[in-house]
Amino acid sequence: MMTPVDTLNNYFRLFDASRTDSQAMEQLLNLFTTDVEIVLNGSSRKGFKDFIELFYQYNVDIKHMHEPWELQNNGTYESRWAVCGMSSEGTVYAKTGIDIARVNEEGQIIYLENVQENQDAFSKY
Amino acid sequence: MMTPVDTLNNYFRLFDASRTDSQAMEQLLNLFTTDVEIVLNGSSRKGFKDFIELFYQYNVDIKHMHEPWELQNNGTYESRWAVCGMSSEGTVYAKTGIDIARVNEEGQIIYLENVQENQDAFSKY
Repeated sequence: MMTPVDTLNNYFRLFDASRTDSQAMEQLLNLFTTDVEIVLNGSSRKGFKDFIELFYQYNVDIKHMHEPWELQNNGTYESRWAVCGMSSEGTVYAKTGIDIARVNEEGQIIYLENVQENQDAFSKY
Repeated sequence: MMTPVDTLNNYFRLFDASRTDSQAMEQLLNLFTTDVEIVLNGSSRKGFKDFIELFYQYNVDIKHMHEPWELQNNGTYESRWAVCGMSSEGTVYAKTGIDIARVNEEGQIIYLENVQENQDAFSKY
């Protein structure tokens, strides 16, 4: 049985691997409930599959690194991350932020919030 | 015979690979003349070997992505890059910047300048 932290570590790893590896993509999608709530800079949507497909339409490469997931008092887990990536136009970018996640008793992610540091974080608060 | 752009593309690739691969480290060091000038945010030093050894004392992981190297009127090449990395204390970071390089007729790098975007770029100019 995977712990919530195992699941969330796999999320970061499989996100990057799923770019070129269809088996990793299948494993990534299986980490989430079908109706998982995905929150990006304060905007909420349901389902991870549409999100990741859209992401790879606009990004040709991505690499995540992250600090340990820490359990919060409200039962969510938080991890600070850094990414570098290349957009489909060929420009490169680098960002840091925090992911906030909730995992159900079956070990699937039911909530995932992405909060970017820098200007996007300021625009939210 | 490698072109200057081949050499400079290998520089980014081998920088990341040299973290865990001693053969890549050897190939990386061979890209530079012994007395190559390395400029970091306006501060100059000679030699790449000491720099990369120091870098990996303070960084446990690094990933570079970069845009194409472009030949400038003065004979240098420039490329915009993005990195994410993890420091030896376990914190992650993300940065963007420009590398400026000059390659001699033997195909070795004799000058490499790293200019970070964001606050460090402002502090230089």
